[in-house]
Amino acid sequence: MDVDFAAVMERVRTVIDDGISFYERMIERDVGTTLYRCHARVVGEHAIECGGLTVEFDHLLIATGARPRIPDLPGLDSVPFVTSNELLQATELPGHLVCLGAGAVSLEFAQAYRRFGAEVTIVLRGPRIARGEDAELAELLQRYLEEEGIRIVPHAQIERVELDGGRPSLVLAGDHRLAGDVLLVATGREPVAGDLGLDELGIGTGPKGVAVDDRLRTAVPHVFAIGDAIDGMMFTHVSTYEAPIAIANMLDGASLTPDYRTMPRTTFTSPELAGVGLSEEEARAAGYEVEVRRYDVGKLGKARALGERRGRIKFVLDARTGVILGAHVLSLHGGDLLPGPMVAMNAPGGTLEPLLATTHAHPTLSEAVKVAARDG
Amino acid sequence: MDVDFAAVMERVRTVIDDGISFYERMIERDVGTTLYRCHARVVGEHAIECGGLTVEFDHLLIATGARPRIPDLPGLDSVPFVTSNELLQATELPGHLVCLGAGAVSLEFAQAYRRFGAEVTIVLRGPRIARGEDAELAELLQRYLEEEGIRIVPHAQIERVELDGGRPSLVLAGDHRLAGDVLLVATGREPVAGDLGLDELGIGTGPKGVAVDDRLRTAVPHVFAIGDAIDGMMFTHVSTYEAPIAIANMLDGASLTPDYRTMPRTTFTSPELAGVGLSEEEARAAGYEVEVRRYDVGKLGKARALGERRGRIKFVLDARTGVILGAHVLSLHGGDLLPGPMVAMNAPGGTLEPLLATTHAHPTLSEAVKVAARDG
Repeated sequence: MDVDFAAVMERVRTVIDDGISFYERMIERDVGTTLYRCHARVVGEHAIECGGLTVEFDHLLIATGARPRIPDLPGLDSVPFVTSNELLQATELPGHLVCLGAGAVSLEFAQAYRRFGAEVTIVLRGPRIARGEDAELAELLQRYLEEEGIRIVPHAQIERVELDGGRPSLVLAGDHRLAGDVLLVATGREPVAGDLGLDELGIGTGPKGVAVDDRLRTAVPHVFAIGDAIDGMMFTHVSTYEAPIAIANMLDGASLTPDYRTMPRTTFTSPELAGVGLSEEEARAAGYEVEVRRYDVGKLGKARALGERRGRIKFVLDARTGVILGAHVLSLHGGDLLPGPMVAMNAPGGTLEPLLATTHAHPTLSEAVKVAARDG
Repeated sequence: MDVDFAAVMERVRTVIDDGISFYERMIERDVGTTLYRCHARVVGEHAIECGGLTVEFDHLLIATGARPRIPDLPGLDSVPFVTSNELLQATELPGHLVCLGAGAVSLEFAQAYRRFGAEVTIVLRGPRIARGEDAELAELLQRYLEEEGIRIVPHAQIERVELDGGRPSLVLAGDHRLAGDVLLVATGREPVAGDLGLDELGIGTGPKGVAVDDRLRTAVPHVFAIGDAIDGMMFTHVSTYEAPIAIANMLDGASLTPDYRTMPRTTFTSPELAGVGLSEEEARAAGYEVEVRRYDVGKLGKARALGERRGRIKFVLDARTGVILGAHVLSLHGGDLLPGPMVAMNAPGGTLEPLLATTHAHPTLSEAVKVAARDG
């Protein structure tokens, strides 16, 4: 390996720390907010206790985020395992990384570690990676990852986890064993909602996080919650979207309801898997007469120039009305190719029309989006 | 230098050749068109002569492209110089590349050669690089290029070109001399329109190329022309846009007129400079009450993660109506960030509304487009 794993991980941590400092500075200095760094608990209708201090409030916005969800697997608590939190602190490349789960966190670490030279195995309960994304593109990404040397074990029935010569080992149905040097548990994230004193206020919490209505309000009228803390789509940009809605409802008496229909999702593999709206399967299950349009990114001149011929763009349309139900991108910087389709979805009519009226610059990857909209 | 110049240039030529083969195969095999490889001349209202062969036609579509325009500079014909055509054949990195002109071709080669380790000087008549692009972003790119070690000489009055110790040398006003090992002439491109026999048919040709009306029709009703051959915006995607319009007008009796208002332009430097519609200066000159919105890409988490903090997004709006007059992007893969703004421009109303209604995924560079639309 030419790339120095420790140096790259050090850089990753620096980027993260810089980001935290940036936002803390913005909150404290630019916005002028007081920032308390402590574990907070609500101790009354209008008070929080935080590091021995009591802070009174008129309104409360809960944005406590999420943490890795640890599945209830026999033996898991008796073996060493890591979550994405610990993996970000890694300084040494393991010989073999076993990833439990096949969502964005698992896939991103799996590919990075594989490219660093580790042996990587992804173990998942379901039939394919990237559950929730369009099956066709998810399966394509799965093939790419396998071609890069990642072993993917779908339909895994994990009976227990145990130590095997000091290494964490998954025992699958049929007594098949799978041992790795590092076991990444990436089977989803859960809202941070317990231990905040919310139940005492009558605010529901549980596996789905802080209970809110469709205006992001809890059972206590002056308490709102947003982001990963209320479950839903766990993306930073979802919080960013919800925050001004909650604030307007809370402080200005507005009655806004968030609309998640054109909320994008991105898995930062290479190529990236990005999607918005319904997958083809979801659209069919919802009873739509579905029209699919697609194009392979590799047919573009830009793909030849970049030396990356993999990828596909796919539109899922309501065949009756032409309304865009979903757009799915598997491409280099695929997340940056979604805005064109999303703006079309959010324009009056919500059809491909304004996108089809748009000439895309040559040579760019976004040309594939246009050609897909035309269906080749 | 770690990067092997000869190997990279070899790869560049392979990509170009592969592209040509791809399109030739498509034309001949997939579409079933007969392809003649020769210099063609029109020899009558319905005949072309091509390599000794006479080909009769009902309709003719001229798409002869463009070639580098060689300026009328005293002495230029007596020194060795190259155009982009020859530079693509290069196998050795020169010590010092002097680029005449500061459009896309010059800037792209200048930066590439500089990054390979050559000394690079850009000499231009105007006040700044990238004429036609928004001045603010063009000046920002100019600063980036200078910071990368490229010397930029604006307001140059070239009196003559001569040999100086065997090297091409520009003699500027004030007897300032500028000698390089290789002189790139990149002062624009001119339509290939002469020597096609068109004048004999009564079809105008000249410095502006094949004369067409606003429906891409020449003076001969069954002869049309598109692309660089008719001057205008010389981009591949402009031809791609014009072709079906010309075909529909020519074969189906349609009366379509091309609309270039949302035609994108991209300069493939790093970061890329991409623009659509009017620059701020053009909008003011056209009499609009202008509102500008902007955002610096470097404030994004994605920019920190990519280690590229340079770049800016800028919207030029009609302050009275909110209509988007222009969108300008200076960013990594900036050309791929334009479709969101372009689709908004092509949506009913043409305002920022559908873009502002669109949540952009985090962390992606396209977030900067959204924040710019909000003006920070």
